[in-house]
Amino acid sequence: MTLRTMGRFLPIVQWLPRYRRADLSADTLAGLIVAIMLVPQGMAYALLAGMPPETGLYASIVPLILYGLLGSSRALAVGPVAIVSLMVASAVGGLAETGSDAYLAAALLLALLSGVLLIAMGAARLGFLVNFISHPVISGFISAAALVIALSQLKYLLGLDIPRSHLITDTLAFAVRHVGDINWVTAAISVAAIALLVYWGPVTNAVLGRMGIGQTTCVAVSRASPLAAVLVSTVVVWAFRFDLSVGVRIVGDIPAGLPPLTMPPFDSALWLDLLPAAALITIVGFLESVSIAKALASKRRQKIDANQELVALGVANLGAAFTGAYPVAGGFGRSMVNFTAGAVTPIASIVTAILIALSILVFTPLFYFLPTAVLSAVIVVAVARLVDVATLRHAWVYNKADAASLIATFFAVLSLGVEIGIVTGIGLSLVLYLYRTSKPHVAIVGRVGSSEHFRNVLRHQVRTCPHVLAMRIDESLYFANTNYLEDYLLAKVADDRRIKHVVLICSAINFIDTSALESLFRVISELKDAGVTLHLAEVKGPVMDRLKKTELLDHLLPGKVFLSTHEAMTDLDCV
Amino acid sequence: MTLRTMGRFLPIVQWLPRYRRADLSADTLAGLIVAIMLVPQGMAYALLAGMPPETGLYASIVPLILYGLLGSSRALAVGPVAIVSLMVASAVGGLAETGSDAYLAAALLLALLSGVLLIAMGAARLGFLVNFISHPVISGFISAAALVIALSQLKYLLGLDIPRSHLITDTLAFAVRHVGDINWVTAAISVAAIALLVYWGPVTNAVLGRMGIGQTTCVAVSRASPLAAVLVSTVVVWAFRFDLSVGVRIVGDIPAGLPPLTMPPFDSALWLDLLPAAALITIVGFLESVSIAKALASKRRQKIDANQELVALGVANLGAAFTGAYPVAGGFGRSMVNFTAGAVTPIASIVTAILIALSILVFTPLFYFLPTAVLSAVIVVAVARLVDVATLRHAWVYNKADAASLIATFFAVLSLGVEIGIVTGIGLSLVLYLYRTSKPHVAIVGRVGSSEHFRNVLRHQVRTCPHVLAMRIDESLYFANTNYLEDYLLAKVADDRRIKHVVLICSAINFIDTSALESLFRVISELKDAGVTLHLAEVKGPVMDRLKKTELLDHLLPGKVFLSTHEAMTDLDCV
Repeated sequence: MTLRTMGRFLPIVQWLPRYRRADLSADTLAGLIVAIMLVPQGMAYALLAGMPPETGLYASIVPLILYGLLGSSRALAVGPVAIVSLMVASAVGGLAETGSDAYLAAALLLALLSGVLLIAMGAARLGFLVNFISHPVISGFISAAALVIALSQLKYLLGLDIPRSHLITDTLAFAVRHVGDINWVTAAISVAAIALLVYWGPVTNAVLGRMGIGQTTCVAVSRASPLAAVLVSTVVVWAFRFDLSVGVRIVGDIPAGLPPLTMPPFDSALWLDLLPAAALITIVGFLESVSIAKALASKRRQKIDANQELVALGVANLGAAFTGAYPVAGGFGRSMVNFTAGAVTPIASIVTAILIALSILVFTPLFYFLPTAVLSAVIVVAVARLVDVATLRHAWVYNKADAASLIATFFAVLSLGVEIGIVTGIGLSLVLYLYRTSKPHVAIVGRVGSSEHFRNVLRHQVRTCPHVLAMRIDESLYFANTNYLEDYLLAKVADDRRIKHVVLICSAINFIDTSALESLFRVISELKDAGVTLHLAEVKGPVMDRLKKTELLDHLLPGKVFLSTHEAMTDLDCV
Repeated sequence: MTLRTMGRFLPIVQWLPRYRRADLSADTLAGLIVAIMLVPQGMAYALLAGMPPETGLYASIVPLILYGLLGSSRALAVGPVAIVSLMVASAVGGLAETGSDAYLAAALLLALLSGVLLIAMGAARLGFLVNFISHPVISGFISAAALVIALSQLKYLLGLDIPRSHLITDTLAFAVRHVGDINWVTAAISVAAIALLVYWGPVTNAVLGRMGIGQTTCVAVSRASPLAAVLVSTVVVWAFRFDLSVGVRIVGDIPAGLPPLTMPPFDSALWLDLLPAAALITIVGFLESVSIAKALASKRRQKIDANQELVALGVANLGAAFTGAYPVAGGFGRSMVNFTAGAVTPIASIVTAILIALSILVFTPLFYFLPTAVLSAVIVVAVARLVDVATLRHAWVYNKADAASLIATFFAVLSLGVEIGIVTGIGLSLVLYLYRTSKPHVAIVGRVGSSEHFRNVLRHQVRTCPHVLAMRIDESLYFANTNYLEDYLLAKVADDRRIKHVVLICSAINFIDTSALESLFRVISELKDAGVTLHLAEVKGPVMDRLKKTELLDHLLPGKVFLSTHEAMTDLDCV
């Protein structure tokens, strides 16, 4: 194995030999900033996934190191992320009681399955599969998931025991009906925490900037808003013992110590139950990770190898499965912070992992009085930015079909749940695409003045001849639109009995599949039966190469293939 | 309602007022010839569907009259057909014992459901849906179905009790293992019947032709091969009483009398069970009918209204459901015979229906001694012609992906059964299509000599400039290929740091969807980050109209939109 091929499968071989001292300080700083952000986020996302808070920290240690060794992205920050956490809760919630041993075991198994699937997809080079999910579907899915996530936190934010439901209307209705049971101290803490999370960044930036503090410190401090919310609220709850006096829910004991070695359960029935959810978590997690990785890589003219990413994320998830965590992916906000804080290599992620391991060894007693409402506030503020109205607005103006698939995905996720919702959206977007190509744009063209140019008779002043129909079809010919072309042509010919020649202008035809080829054979025969000759014009090179392998050109006779429409029309006495 | 709109929904209004005496004699003759063919075929297909023989005749009476009143095709001959009969056997066989009352009731229900679905699709104008089934999938499906049908008749042909199986290997293995149990007289009758069916047409045609008999009589006699086989074999079995002496299975009593009025069962669980099969029967039956109707109509420059066909076939199936029959469709061979025998209007079908009604009133006692092996022979000879190797051969030469979907459909039907088989084939062909468009042909182009023409650098001797990359993408841009383009472009730019300008030639781009638009925004930013400017050239009118609704052209700046590649290259100092 050469160094080059090794570098492909083990990217660390590429960058480690060239690693410099300056890189290490940049990476350490970036790793520190991400760690400050990730400690409260990790616990919060664990809560969202229905897992104990420490599992979110476990998910931020070994998976980060493994991804760092294998990932092709220099700046992607892996760990627990909001949407995957929601999908874990949705997949496991139906099978076991939240927080039970069975629940934790199922989450481990999800990570294992997801890891295996990712590695298998990477080995089979199936990274391209995510291309079949359109942006409007992703946008609708993420917006709806963000809404579902935010509402799932209402019970913690209000200190209200809202029963689990996948319908947001049920959740809201319950909250309104039981408004009297709200724990108002908890609600006040939530509001204060959200305000602090939202305004901390701008305010500290402005104040520190005015004090002439350096850019890097500004970034570090402004990104510490979750940490600040955690510290302030912990002190307040501890000082007033709100947990005892008014029943504010707190995090309580978090076991100190490094992640445990765990073994996912080997229960084939459970495997089958979780497989569909694992497949979706795999796809959504990969999609999120690879889009961020690509965006960041292109800023530095680096490349991302999608299949290597699959393997790296797969191994990271296996790491999660065997160290008491749950499925991980690349996080958007976190990776942006890592990148802007100056991360040069995956060493930054490894620094983050070490710092989180230290904090779990040393600092967990400090989180005893942390109110869960603050973790929920961290989640809500993080996902609020995921609600994406801009894409809908743009799609609505640009292409209604795309807007429709966005809206359909959004409501499908809200009404049918995350899994069925995204599958519905993907299916619908494919059907809409096929539907569009099944009714291609067809233009009857005529000569512009006495030039050699031919344009749409509906858009331009052009000259035509009654005995020649010249039409251009603006789509490749394949099974879904071949009947349309056939019907269109035969209807035109049936309507106007003066037509003796049809010239099919093929300048926009990039491909003709077997169904369309058969259809052309049939159209030629049917037109001949009706006393009409078909001719082709402006056939592209690759299309012509394929047609020459068939008997179509013989079957076309006396019809001809012309290089240009002008040549065709001149030959057919239409000048 | 004007006569014109009435004519659309009730085509009989169009042709009946213009009906002439000459038309009646032509229609009567065609109707007679089809009836001669249909009596044995109807009983044979009923046998294939697992139904009593008379139900095949019932299916050839009321449905034909209803279709005649509503259909937009002048020559389509509706009735029991081979593949739909097989699908009925496959759908109902799992639910009830062949020949039981529950079996007959389920078949009635299938006809009812199929009728309702057809009418609903017609009302919703969903006739275009069949376009999503590619010809290779249809070809693979029909070939496999023909094979399944032929093998399902082995038990009657050999007089051997072969247990029902959807695996043809099981059927063959059983026949080989029990070769000693074969009823050799039955097998001899089968071989003789097949030989008669195959050679009757050519031989009678030659003999009658030499005798100077008219064309129409020749057609009528040559198409009577099933009737001849039926008559000869009946006489032989009756003369030697093979039914008693060697246990040749015979048709036995067929109740004389017109079709009974029947009521499909109203059992919601059964409805749900049968709905998927009914949907597939609907689609396959419609597909078969409409392709024949179109082929025949175009020969006379007539038009077929696919949505009207849906309604007409739907009503015909409702007729089948309420008159003791089972699902019907337009038959290929039968319609060709009807057409070539000179049918001018649906009166021909009504004549056929009347003759079949007469034969069921009068002639059924004559069929008592008819061996079922001869009906099976009729089926085998009819479906043998459906096995289609030509399409596979053509597809193999022309486009391997199409050949793959044909072969996959063929083996899926043989191994998974007709329903799952065709669904698998359809899904696979869509995925293959999307896969192809997801990796579009991209050409880097250069200037031919000092002309204004630009061609692929890999195919032609052309001149390029190191600071300008001119590339043409030969596909519309949509979500499945937008990542490909993005990756391709960024990789090219990352590989060659001399590139300062990229010219994207859009001559083959017929559409840019929202995902691709976002991707273009992103590519422009990413190229800018890398110090490269993107330009567009040869953007089509409709595409440009849409782009103008967005901010893309502003975002492109300082990149420009050029009318031609020549103009772009000249402006960028690449001459």
